[in-house]
Amino acid sequence: MKWTRTALGVALLLALVSQMTAHSSDDLVYGYECRSGFCQKVELSEENYAKAISLPVCRLFCGSSIGTLWPKPTGTVRLDTLMRQVDISFIDFNVNGTVRQQKLWRSVENRFMDMLDAQIPDRKILARGGYRMSVNINTPEEPTPARLTLETDESYILDIETDASGHVLANITATNFFGARHGLETLAQLIVYDDIRREVQVTANATITDAPVYKWRGLLLDTSRNYYSVKSIKRTLEGMAMVKLNTFHWHITDSHSFPLEVKKRPELHKLGAYSQRQVYSRRDVAEVVEYGRVRGIRVMPEFDAPAHVGEGWQHKNMTACFNAQPWKSFCVEPPCGQLDPTVNEMYDVLEDIYGTMFDQFNPDVFHMGGDEVSTSCWNSSQPIQKWMKKQGWGLETADFMRLWGHFQTEALGRVDKVANGTHTPIILWTSGLTEEPFIDEYLNPERYIIQIWTTGVDPKVKKILKRGYKIIVSNYDALYLDCGGAGWVTDGNNWCSPYIGWQKVYDNSLKSIAGDYEHHVLGAEGAIWSEQIDEHTLDNRFWPRASALAERLWSNPAEGWRQAESRLLLHRQRLVDNGLGAEAMQPQWCLQNEHECPIDACSRGGGRLGLIVLLLLTPLSA
Amino acid sequence: MKWTRTALGVALLLALVSQMTAHSSDDLVYGYECRSGFCQKVELSEENYAKAISLPVCRLFCGSSIGTLWPKPTGTVRLDTLMRQVDISFIDFNVNGTVRQQKLWRSVENRFMDMLDAQIPDRKILARGGYRMSVNINTPEEPTPARLTLETDESYILDIETDASGHVLANITATNFFGARHGLETLAQLIVYDDIRREVQVTANATITDAPVYKWRGLLLDTSRNYYSVKSIKRTLEGMAMVKLNTFHWHITDSHSFPLEVKKRPELHKLGAYSQRQVYSRRDVAEVVEYGRVRGIRVMPEFDAPAHVGEGWQHKNMTACFNAQPWKSFCVEPPCGQLDPTVNEMYDVLEDIYGTMFDQFNPDVFHMGGDEVSTSCWNSSQPIQKWMKKQGWGLETADFMRLWGHFQTEALGRVDKVANGTHTPIILWTSGLTEEPFIDEYLNPERYIIQIWTTGVDPKVKKILKRGYKIIVSNYDALYLDCGGAGWVTDGNNWCSPYIGWQKVYDNSLKSIAGDYEHHVLGAEGAIWSEQIDEHTLDNRFWPRASALAERLWSNPAEGWRQAESRLLLHRQRLVDNGLGAEAMQPQWCLQNEHECPIDACSRGGGRLGLIVLLLLTPLSA
Repeated sequence: MKWTRTALGVALLLALVSQMTAHSSDDLVYGYECRSGFCQKVELSEENYAKAISLPVCRLFCGSSIGTLWPKPTGTVRLDTLMRQVDISFIDFNVNGTVRQQKLWRSVENRFMDMLDAQIPDRKILARGGYRMSVNINTPEEPTPARLTLETDESYILDIETDASGHVLANITATNFFGARHGLETLAQLIVYDDIRREVQVTANATITDAPVYKWRGLLLDTSRNYYSVKSIKRTLEGMAMVKLNTFHWHITDSHSFPLEVKKRPELHKLGAYSQRQVYSRRDVAEVVEYGRVRGIRVMPEFDAPAHVGEGWQHKNMTACFNAQPWKSFCVEPPCGQLDPTVNEMYDVLEDIYGTMFDQFNPDVFHMGGDEVSTSCWNSSQPIQKWMKKQGWGLETADFMRLWGHFQTEALGRVDKVANGTHTPIILWTSGLTEEPFIDEYLNPERYIIQIWTTGVDPKVKKILKRGYKIIVSNYDALYLDCGGAGWVTDGNNWCSPYIGWQKVYDNSLKSIAGDYEHHVLGAEGAIWSEQIDEHTLDNRFWPRASALAERLWSNPAEGWRQAESRLLLHRQRLVDNGLGAEAMQPQWCLQNEHECPIDACSRGGGRLGLIVLLLLTPLSA
Repeated sequence: MKWTRTALGVALLLALVSQMTAHSSDDLVYGYECRSGFCQKVELSEENYAKAISLPVCRLFCGSSIGTLWPKPTGTVRLDTLMRQVDISFIDFNVNGTVRQQKLWRSVENRFMDMLDAQIPDRKILARGGYRMSVNINTPEEPTPARLTLETDESYILDIETDASGHVLANITATNFFGARHGLETLAQLIVYDDIRREVQVTANATITDAPVYKWRGLLLDTSRNYYSVKSIKRTLEGMAMVKLNTFHWHITDSHSFPLEVKKRPELHKLGAYSQRQVYSRRDVAEVVEYGRVRGIRVMPEFDAPAHVGEGWQHKNMTACFNAQPWKSFCVEPPCGQLDPTVNEMYDVLEDIYGTMFDQFNPDVFHMGGDEVSTSCWNSSQPIQKWMKKQGWGLETADFMRLWGHFQTEALGRVDKVANGTHTPIILWTSGLTEEPFIDEYLNPERYIIQIWTTGVDPKVKKILKRGYKIIVSNYDALYLDCGGAGWVTDGNNWCSPYIGWQKVYDNSLKSIAGDYEHHVLGAEGAIWSEQIDEHTLDNRFWPRASALAERLWSNPAEGWRQAESRLLLHRQRLVDNGLGAEAMQPQWCLQNEHECPIDACSRGGGRLGLIVLLLLTPLSA
């Protein structure tokens, strides 16, 4: 390699001008230059053709020390402005010490290559040549299969350099699979397509050390109110992987439908699914769990009980108030339905449901639901009243709380039974049971994690925290992503209206919710409750807002949404390129004209007009 | 045909039971029975298998005189409860007097068959046999090509009967193509798939006379703030055709981008499109216009001016304040930009744009935009100030209104020039120009139609009406379908938040907006302004809300949304079956359990327990 940068520049300019002529009809009109820390759109001309660059390339290094990375890393970030063309036919992966996990890594590699492909609008016009690239993964050998737990260290170090022979070496070091695949995700964001040169380019030199602030970074999807195809769930997992979210909380069942195949109790899905085409078979579940694992995501099932049951439980005489009318008197939305805690055989059914879930999901944490129990529902049942009287109990609220406590104790016993005696941490929603005095009576803080769905400023949160419970935050005023639609049993808007913008999701500080107890916060989840959402609107409800949540949880940035806006615009495009129908945040004009849309945009052409010229190194022969 | 209904019943039952056994694994669990005017879900059993029916079949006749028709017809509706199996391989079309329009009718027929197909989940398991069906279209011969105008009579009569040979005859009578194809749309809604018998069935006897209340029934799509693929625009036209909406108002350009190919001015889209892949070529436009025509839809272009221009006009020196900053001082959203009315050559460019639009769209009504002109924008231009002074004008608001009036007069002259002297009706948005005293000075009520986008109760509306202008209603508080998202230049929510539910769209009475001047109301349009919407969210923003609008405009029902709810739920499913990603209104449970979800749902099993049994006639041999 004896050519100098100047000589290369001339050769490159000539090559580009001839290319420009060759493709005049669908040629590019605009490129970008980095000026005063912003990527400015410029009309391409023979004069600027060699130095103008594409938007994704420009944004990688211009004006921000973290480029276009989303979520932003929490450790060192050193990104060179030098880009190198990569020959995507010569990318190889080397994984140390994971011989036994070959299949897992092969899936990860395939996905990585798919992500690169997704950026290239037309492979036929891709310029030839470029550097070879080796991706080297350094992790100690792990037990099979890799399993994410609350103890997993998800940190990684990514180092990109060029060796003497001109190869690009991307080295990822992590203590396990999960950290390593996060590193790969970051690497993917440093590889971009330059539509001016029609090349795939990579940041030539970089060092990034990174680790998440919160360990629980999740999305909840309710597949009972409306059904979602496996394909659409996979799209969600794909979007999650792209922003290092690590928990897919699957609220599989509810009163409305029971779409899960439980091997020993096929009548549950036969009677409970909307149709036999709307069932998650054992094969479907296995597919989703594995698809998540490849993407560093735990797929955690919830079986919500004792309320939120109904369809599927017909003919068993194990429920109360199923589809009672007028529903307003017995539950929060139609159809009503609660398990009858007094029927012993009911716990056998629970055990089979839990058994399927533990068998198929192998959860490190299990969700037992526990929200919105209605006293009036249970009180409407003669057999329940009779049973309670037999125990010498009254029929007051405290008595029904005792009944609930009884249910929870029995149900937990069945969980422990199917978990072979391991005491899996249990999550419950905030409810009457998580309030004084019942919380102390029925819920052991060593065992239970509480998922908060009240508002972030509700004093109940601190009461739970000071008792020593770990919490997961899903405050509805910032993280219920189904808010803001029409009413569905009334006119007007739905109960938690208005729509929650990504800005609010981004600025939702767990620290200010937890105060002094921040160390008890495992993390947070954004939730889609599906009364008015199904797979046709799934993508745009989650994205890009779930990306905003992801950065809050991974990076917990000191800055607010304004500092993240232009980077998120670019990330939203990345989601779209990868097949996710993310909602548009702004006119495309704002993506193409950085910093011109904010309400406080100031006039351009101010003091700092320094022009950064990108040096592009391309080998003369491939 | 000598068999009796009873004998048939027995044969049918036997046939069905054997079929049930044959498909036991993915067999149906539930069917429906019509009880007390509601379709009630029942578990299928050998006892009820012969009389249980599928939901779409049940809903066609149970409890409502208009079945599942959407929008509801305005004339006579007589629907028999008798259904007949149709052999979809033997459906033939006979179109009288339209020899010269064969291609148009062939497209219509293909689409009709596609709609039937969309209902069948799996053609492989479709039961054999059924009746032949003939669709007979009776319309007088028409000039080619069929063209929708404000004078077009869209009424039709649909008559379904069976002739002596057992054929189902669907006769549609109309005075032109547009009425006839509406009749076909209604017919398509009377043909449903019965998943119990795996048959396509048609209402055996029906008479429907129908005509729209309002002649302008439209949707507006802004393709400038964000770009929409032709494919996604076609989906919109498809949804419109299904509910007899007849006007696609294409707001093609704006300040943000100029995605239209103007033959004589290719620089407009070269410089103005977001990319050269995001351009509507002449071929694209022709395709969209024809796709609309086949579906009974006029595709009306808008060229919004003198404000709302910018990208594409570079290097011409014909605009003022393009992308001026801070934008708040010069326009309502970035990027700012207005035409400079003082540059004579600018009108030549306009003429070329208008020329392309008249050539390609052949509009019977043309939209010249005219909203949100900013005085401060024009006032920021030295050349404009100079020109105005030269005319002896001041620089006060009234002077700029005069400038605007000058623009409108000149621009209209160019429209008339390209329209070969025909005085095409012109639509303008409500604006400063449509207020006193300017409206009387610059806008002739014989020539201009005013599109209202202020609120429905704004007194300005009546002031316009009493002057004799015809109006089109797009009151933003009910018909701006982009309201309710996040802010896009601020946090919080966008300017016209909250989200407008379908109920509000449905109940938006043009009569109460227009009062005594109802006869001046041509109709209404629902609008999508695309700052935060692109093709990924297009379907769910329009649907099912645009269907609610369609019924308001076609039928103008005396009843409110509650009476329409369960029918719209079913229609939303129809949209989804036809490939539109319509938003979910409710849990699927509410579709399957009619009348159990409303907040005033009363307990079932009340007084009227009359059971209507559907008689199903199927020929013994195909």
